[in-house]
Amino acid sequence: MDFDKAAAKISDGIKIKINKREVTIILCCVKKTDNLWEIVDYSDVPIPAVFETLNYLKSENLIYFDEKACHLTERGVEIVGSLHPVEDMTCSYCEGRGLSLGKFSDLYKKFIDIQTSRPAASHNFDQGYVTPGTSVARFVLAYERGDVEDKDILILGDDDLVSIVLGLSGLPKSITVVEIDTRITGFIREMGREHGFEVNVNDFDLRKPLPGMHMKSYDTFFTDPPETIKAADAFLGRGVSALKEPGSAGYFGFTRREASLTKWYDLQRLIIDYGMVLTDIIHNFSEYVNWGYEEETRAWDLAPVKITPVKNWYRSALYRIQALDGFRGSTIDYGEENIYEDSESSTT
Amino acid sequence: MDFDKAAAKISDGIKIKINKREVTIILCCVKKTDNLWEIVDYSDVPIPAVFETLNYLKSENLIYFDEKACHLTERGVEIVGSLHPVEDMTCSYCEGRGLSLGKFSDLYKKFIDIQTSRPAASHNFDQGYVTPGTSVARFVLAYERGDVEDKDILILGDDDLVSIVLGLSGLPKSITVVEIDTRITGFIREMGREHGFEVNVNDFDLRKPLPGMHMKSYDTFFTDPPETIKAADAFLGRGVSALKEPGSAGYFGFTRREASLTKWYDLQRLIIDYGMVLTDIIHNFSEYVNWGYEEETRAWDLAPVKITPVKNWYRSALYRIQALDGFRGSTIDYGEENIYEDSESSTT
Repeated sequence: MDFDKAAAKISDGIKIKINKREVTIILCCVKKTDNLWEIVDYSDVPIPAVFETLNYLKSENLIYFDEKACHLTERGVEIVGSLHPVEDMTCSYCEGRGLSLGKFSDLYKKFIDIQTSRPAASHNFDQGYVTPGTSVARFVLAYERGDVEDKDILILGDDDLVSIVLGLSGLPKSITVVEIDTRITGFIREMGREHGFEVNVNDFDLRKPLPGMHMKSYDTFFTDPPETIKAADAFLGRGVSALKEPGSAGYFGFTRREASLTKWYDLQRLIIDYGMVLTDIIHNFSEYVNWGYEEETRAWDLAPVKITPVKNWYRSALYRIQALDGFRGSTIDYGEENIYEDSESSTT
Repeated sequence: MDFDKAAAKISDGIKIKINKREVTIILCCVKKTDNLWEIVDYSDVPIPAVFETLNYLKSENLIYFDEKACHLTERGVEIVGSLHPVEDMTCSYCEGRGLSLGKFSDLYKKFIDIQTSRPAASHNFDQGYVTPGTSVARFVLAYERGDVEDKDILILGDDDLVSIVLGLSGLPKSITVVEIDTRITGFIREMGREHGFEVNVNDFDLRKPLPGMHMKSYDTFFTDPPETIKAADAFLGRGVSALKEPGSAGYFGFTRREASLTKWYDLQRLIIDYGMVLTDIIHNFSEYVNWGYEEETRAWDLAPVKITPVKNWYRSALYRIQALDGFRGSTIDYGEENIYEDSESSTT
């Protein structure tokens, strides 16, 4: 099996460049699990590329599909035997985040309770929210780094309800949410009233530049952009433009499920060009709850086996970035443009 | 207390730009601990800037020193009361690395035993080696990512003895070490003979470009460069130039103890310019054993309280970078130049 040739052939068929390393990892994932969505999870390769690779491996008689799953053929077993096994060495106590949530366990319990009545993920707005543990862990990380207490905090798109975690903590100086979905903004307002915290909630489409009142006004922002460079620029760039001063920080998730490392590279260049420095990239920090509209997505159309996921399989890395002298964000107006899709995306 | 003014004044006195955020964090660290070296550890600011800030805070009557330690004055206590407390939310099971070492606990025990007879850290070569747990954790991370098993691995400077961990595992296809200190190269050779693993050991000064035989020959490299941009270019750039192909990966430590975030920014720009993408930046991944020559360093001269550290206090982040199409490293010849010092360094 010539994995270089395989990678070249697979890349030709889709508009995503994949390499030998990725093809071999995908093959090894089939040894680890027969579930399509877990293969995507372990491989850390964009979904369309994973599925195209699986189709190629099938054509090479290394794997086969049945109605529910994906298996190695005899030939596949033989080849995988000489390759690195896919193994998960994640710390089971902190789920790989490196953080203890212990100090905030009461807050965590309260938030778990509150978020059960949250609005469902909306396909319209490309929503897919994270587990309550993820939202609390984002808060704890920012707290440890000194980006929460007595700080003015902006959340750009808040289907993860980070504003509620922040509100319950009572620690920030102010909390502001900018969000397009009125179900979410309504829920946050309601929880604020019910649990006695204040949030400035703004119904707003982030494809447009932020109103002037938000410029250079916040110490910290949180966001979770869709994984295209334009959407990253819209969400992150707006966040950066809203930061007060050098030392201010931003937190956001970015996945490999819809972004190749080539796109990650473009993202990192964008961040550097904003005059922001990367302080943390934490692998698989954020875990997303299966959003329930899987069968309406491009990923479903591409899937060689039509089976809905059981376990959560969509994860993203957490980035923390910090402002340096001369930082500036983005004020590009994307109008009504569809900035949410590219060749690597498939769950929008 | 005007922290902006303080930051400007402190920055004027040294050639390191520090901001309001950092001055307040250093003040809050004095509440957390009275030990000078732990203040450096928690603050994540270059040592000369921490000490200059402490001197400034003393002149403002916010802190005072006694023979052994650093304390808040009454005025200091008052001001700190309204600021974010410095707290450590690190997962105590994995020490914040997010990894379980369980699968390799026998290897870990064996390595702990072996490294007790290692050569002491040499001031000549700016050595300061990591704890055995750190060396094993670097191996485990690389193992999980598929960068160890059946791979050709290069270690550029190996006072952390990663080659011995790799050798004991029996997993790599080949292990090559390039190292200037003949005590280290001798020790690695000896351990290889004693424990039955092969390592290609080369006595070599990394200020010079790698010989042609190493170019484009490795799947993975490990290094731990001194924190100047030239040294980073020498160590990392050589590592990158030795990688085989897109998908090959590099691991290295980089601290904030001798590098401001402005220098981190320059480092990240360098990495991007190599055509490498950052996949991980793991805060405080590496812990260094107190090296024993503290009193000979610039840090000691600058220290407002002359007390030797007790606990390990020098930590660095772990970076993982991966090669993309068109990547290339550095072949600059630094000759006999002192590339190991700049205004932010103080332990060389």
